[in-house]
Amino acid sequence: ANLRNHPGAQEFSRNVLLVYSAALVFFMQAGFAMLCAGAVRKKNVQNTMLKNLLDACGAALAFFSLGYAFAFGGDDPMSAKKTFIGTSNFFLMNVEDLAFWLFQYAFSAASATIVAGTLAERCQMAAYLGYSVLLGGFVYPVVAHSAWSANGFLSATALEPMWGVGMIDFAGSGVVHLTGGTTALFATMILGPRRGRFHDDTGRKLAKPKEFPGHSVALQMLGTFTLWFGWYGFNAGSALLLDSLERDKVLALAGVNTTLAGGTAGIVALFANLWALERYTGEPFFDVKYLMNGALSGLVAVTGGCGVLEPWAAVVVGAIAGLLYMLGTWGLVKLRLDDAVDAIPVHMLNGAWGLIAVGLLASPKRLYAAYGHSDHVGFFYSFSHNGADGLLLAAQIVGILFIIGWVMIIMLPFFVWLDWRGWFRSDPLEEIVGLDTSYHGGLMLGGEDDINPEYVSAF
Amino acid sequence: ANLRNHPGAQEFSRNVLLVYSAALVFFMQAGFAMLCAGAVRKKNVQNTMLKNLLDACGAALAFFSLGYAFAFGGDDPMSAKKTFIGTSNFFLMNVEDLAFWLFQYAFSAASATIVAGTLAERCQMAAYLGYSVLLGGFVYPVVAHSAWSANGFLSATALEPMWGVGMIDFAGSGVVHLTGGTTALFATMILGPRRGRFHDDTGRKLAKPKEFPGHSVALQMLGTFTLWFGWYGFNAGSALLLDSLERDKVLALAGVNTTLAGGTAGIVALFANLWALERYTGEPFFDVKYLMNGALSGLVAVTGGCGVLEPWAAVVVGAIAGLLYMLGTWGLVKLRLDDAVDAIPVHMLNGAWGLIAVGLLASPKRLYAAYGHSDHVGFFYSFSHNGADGLLLAAQIVGILFIIGWVMIIMLPFFVWLDWRGWFRSDPLEEIVGLDTSYHGGLMLGGEDDINPEYVSAF
Amino acid sequence: ANLRNHPGAQEFSRNVLLVYSAALVFFMQAGFAMLCAGAVRKKNVQNTMLKNLLDACGAALAFFSLGYAFAFGGDDPMSAKKTFIGTSNFFLMNVEDLAFWLFQYAFSAASATIVAGTLAERCQMAAYLGYSVLLGGFVYPVVAHSAWSANGFLSATALEPMWGVGMIDFAGSGVVHLTGGTTALFATMILGPRRGRFHDDTGRKLAKPKEFPGHSVALQMLGTFTLWFGWYGFNAGSALLLDSLERDKVLALAGVNTTLAGGTAGIVALFANLWALERYTGEPFFDVKYLMNGALSGLVAVTGGCGVLEPWAAVVVGAIAGLLYMLGTWGLVKLRLDDAVDAIPVHMLNGAWGLIAVGLLASPKRLYAAYGHSDHVGFFYSFSHNGADGLLLAAQIVGILFIIGWVMIIMLPFFVWLDWRGWFRSDPLEEIVGLDTSYHGGLMLGGEDDINPEYVSAF
Repeated sequence: ANLRNHPGAQEFSRNVLLVYSAALVFFMQAGFAMLCAGAVRKKNVQNTMLKNLLDACGAALAFFSLGYAFAFGGDDPMSAKKTFIGTSNFFLMNVEDLAFWLFQYAFSAASATIVAGTLAERCQMAAYLGYSVLLGGFVYPVVAHSAWSANGFLSATALEPMWGVGMIDFAGSGVVHLTGGTTALFATMILGPRRGRFHDDTGRKLAKPKEFPGHSVALQMLGTFTLWFGWYGFNAGSALLLDSLERDKVLALAGVNTTLAGGTAGIVALFANLWALERYTGEPFFDVKYLMNGALSGLVAVTGGCGVLEPWAAVVVGAIAGLLYMLGTWGLVKLRLDDAVDAIPVHMLNGAWGLIAVGLLASPKRLYAAYGHSDHVGFFYSFSHNGADGLLLAAQIVGILFIIGWVMIIMLPFFVWLDWRGWFRSDPLEEIVGLDTSYHGGLMLGGEDDINPEYVSAF
Repeated sequence: ANLRNHPGAQEFSRNVLLVYSAALVFFMQAGFAMLCAGAVRKKNVQNTMLKNLLDACGAALAFFSLGYAFAFGGDDPMSAKKTFIGTSNFFLMNVEDLAFWLFQYAFSAASATIVAGTLAERCQMAAYLGYSVLLGGFVYPVVAHSAWSANGFLSATALEPMWGVGMIDFAGSGVVHLTGGTTALFATMILGPRRGRFHDDTGRKLAKPKEFPGHSVALQMLGTFTLWFGWYGFNAGSALLLDSLERDKVLALAGVNTTLAGGTAGIVALFANLWALERYTGEPFFDVKYLMNGALSGLVAVTGGCGVLEPWAAVVVGAIAGLLYMLGTWGLVKLRLDDAVDAIPVHMLNGAWGLIAVGLLASPKRLYAAYGHSDHVGFFYSFSHNGADGLLLAAQIVGILFIIGWVMIIMLPFFVWLDWRGWFRSDPLEEIVGLDTSYHGGLMLGGEDDINPEYVSAF
Repeated sequence: ANLRNHPGAQEFSRNVLLVYSAALVFFMQAGFAMLCAGAVRKKNVQNTMLKNLLDACGAALAFFSLGYAFAFGGDDPMSAKKTFIGTSNFFLMNVEDLAFWLFQYAFSAASATIVAGTLAERCQMAAYLGYSVLLGGFVYPVVAHSAWSANGFLSATALEPMWGVGMIDFAGSGVVHLTGGTTALFATMILGPRRGRFHDDTGRKLAKPKEFPGHSVALQMLGTFTLWFGWYGFNAGSALLLDSLERDKVLALAGVNTTLAGGTAGIVALFANLWALERYTGEPFFDVKYLMNGALSGLVAVTGGCGVLEPWAAVVVGAIAGLLYMLGTWGLVKLRLDDAVDAIPVHMLNGAWGLIAVGLLASPKRLYAAYGHSDHVGFFYSFSHNGADGLLLAAQIVGILFIIGWVMIIMLPFFVWLDWRGWFRSDPLEEIVGLDTSYHGGLMLGGEDDINPEYVSAF
């Protein structure tokens, strides 16, 4: 029975709690904002802050007018047909389940915000506005439609899901994080690194990349905690959408797994980096960046499977997420790709890992509780269950390829075009004096100006 | 049937969720605090912070002892009699519905906090204590009684509401925001602007008002996001008080409208100001203040009608709120009224607009779901519904006039008296060295003292 | 009837809301982090931040593997036997009620975090890791078992509670706060004060202790508000664990009492200190530290009785908590015990007071609603009820003695051993340059370095 349409008390609770879950997910915007504010230099704080709030505002209008319609418009759970995109319910017309809209809006806002962090400190306002609208209004909704609409070709809740199982992305490792993270990767490839990060003034490659320490680790930490807090709305809240009589138990499982994966990943990243520093430099130290971004990596990775993994599996997912983050952040530096907040290893790498983890570790019992069937389970379970059945794993990989491919064919040309027109990158003087002065009428930081006027005159 | 008194599961959820909604509204205090902390200069941070927490603490005692009794004491929903003020249930005696008390407490605390921001950086502690007690203990409760008690003369839920409809103020555009904002206006008129804002040292009027940039845009942004987050408890949570079987759906509608109005208003204020700067100065820039305060303006404006407006109407309400904020902040400067956090355009102007918007745009269908009748609807709907019926709009206007008038007859004389006794304004030296040094035992900001000792000696 | 095992809608709400309550309690970690970040000097921010997040991460793994098993493993509510420690359900094996696990995890994380604040700015990383694991993995779970497991010897919900009533610690004044605060006391006794706090460079005692003002009162205030916000999950949320048909009403009472005690205590501490300053120094000022820590003291003190006290009693509890904080902070300075965040007067003193307050003031009516019986009530009520019955009060005192004693026999020798091995205290140079430079690869605060290199060379 479809509980969504049931009257009565559980329905009452589901609707109300979905709104409060949406509020928690919305509050993740504050987390992203603080994370970014802490990670950038003081001269760019205002620019970074503005983008975070503008994302939240813009996503509201975009999801109201187009996004929801593209993602979920005209969903027909009784039909097995697959569609590429929704085509009705524009401007919230004839939408009954407003709590669902609000929850999905908050998700769409998160996706766009991921990108802004990576590009911080060097991106033009016009470019930012352009890619935000394109991502939030079209690219993300198509991914959400494919994975979560009853008529999406990857959907696990379709009447006849792909290969009998579909891609299982419980709360959006793929839909939200991989989409945002992949966009961030293509964007930074085209945009290039911040001035002075990998090259000196004459353009010569630095032997050792220059670190740009953020201006406040306290705000970064606040951002990390706020994101983790909001993640309970994100992951646990997603259980409210299930058509299952055990929604509350799946919800609790999702909360527990979220906690375990985040905690494990933070610890693993911190100590693995400590060990590596000891081994390669002889000067180990506790690098708080690895703890923070490690924890976030674990949270991203468990997002896809939080409702279908056993708790021990969440620990495994988290441990690998922590290692992946460490390798990812090293790899980015090696490739001279500049990511001001490490969003690519956190969201893209671990978004993909989160989908694969479901394909490997989804438990029959938990799948049954959440989705009402367990014909195709995690690869490691399938040996004992019904022979080596890789269909779920295959569906997850198809999902990853689809998301990366879809982002690539739309966003990559767009970024190339922006760059070719000269609309993407701030000009060098703007970057050196800082975007706050360049685009936002000066610093708002009374008496703490750390822009050396000599920089400007020397230019 | 009155669900409030029904046993059972929905009642269980209503009580629990009302407590958590109250917690969210309480958390708005943190939002106000961060907004104010970011907006003031470093030398006054401690003073501003203290007031925010003291408001929350003081409101608890005031609402426990007097406020609740004045606002809701002895409510009799079965009687059509109208009273000016409640006269029982002092000190929570014989109050059964404690969740309701907690929710209303959080609202009363919000009202007082609005004023503190406007008066920041120049108000004596004694004056602050005085007006807080008067506002929270008497002025606000009378407004709340009139609008929300079953026996209030403006109440929409009275047995026989004024003109058959009463004033509809769903979550308090008028009761909370207009009351606080109007108090702020009268206070700043009497208190005068901060030294150096509109005049030079010799008292000569400056050609161009001096900007006092706050010391941290990151904290201001954090405050904005925190307020928005808490607003879901404020607006959506208010639906839990309804005596309607569709409370959960009204709650979701309120959440959606809150989001749409906030988002729209932020974008409109940001771009309208950009356009105006381009037009009048030729040097446009993205002013993050307009985005933040614009969004807050939209949230204030939709507070009154979030449960009775269609989503498209929330977008309209937000767009006008964004413009009103921009005009309001310009107007204040023109009138040489100094508002350290722009609380007057945000809360007063848009509080009034929020009430009017209900009179114009309240939808029959949504009114029916929330209040069980739709005899008198928004003016624009009334043409097709039952002829041009302006009764709801008229009731809303009566409400605005009552609130402004009531605040004026109590608070204005009080501020004049404070000023006449010399208890309102900090003395000039205190203001110049900063209130943290003057009232709070020195700066707590180790190593970042930006008070020039020369200022002091030069005095 | 045991509602925990009932199917149906109330059960659904209980499970979901317990997860969201856990999220609120988790968010208190952010509050602790901001409180500590604001209270320490800039050179130690990163160290302090790292510990807060590492606590949250480590507690997840510890409670997953051992903690939950020790505290609640194999609980048998049908048996009257008393056990010292649980011995099954390691690694979440065979645990059905995952929402309960998550809620209890968040509590265990809070307990460990309390200690870190006290020891800030001078403790080695290895020592921190050691005591955190010991406290979170063993010492705290034993206390939680004794007080809250159905088979704990102090448990009020046991089949045959001690003296027919057991110790009533509704949400953990004793279990969480007294345990953490007592550990902090023993730790600072062994670790000693920060360099320069009570002695000059030559080791001579200072006539007047040197204040080490924190670097940001705004962050401290944010921490205070965040803690208060999360406390609604902590205190009100604990009512969801009750086996009572009136859980929702007890929950609302807990929320109201939390608010009243916090507000009263803040005001009392602020004004009592103002009065004392006037009296003893002639230079009174509003010390924001007393308001913040006073409010937190009230919240701690009411934690033990929030569900069994009348609202007026919560005001009394808060007033005394505010005074106790003031006396406690003075006493610490007198005893030359250095507590960087005043965790000892806030959590230890008021944790104990919270337990005693239950013994004095627990109301028959409220006890009955929460626990289903009221044979033994608060001492002040017992006169009229069933003669002067001090059994509840006696049980509370036994609980205090047990907690202090248990912490002493385990943690005190451990700290002494750490100190003897030279693993506890940072070496003087590390402390002077700051722990961020010493342990975390340098400051992350671009351009705001306030470590004077002369300090270092002069060493």
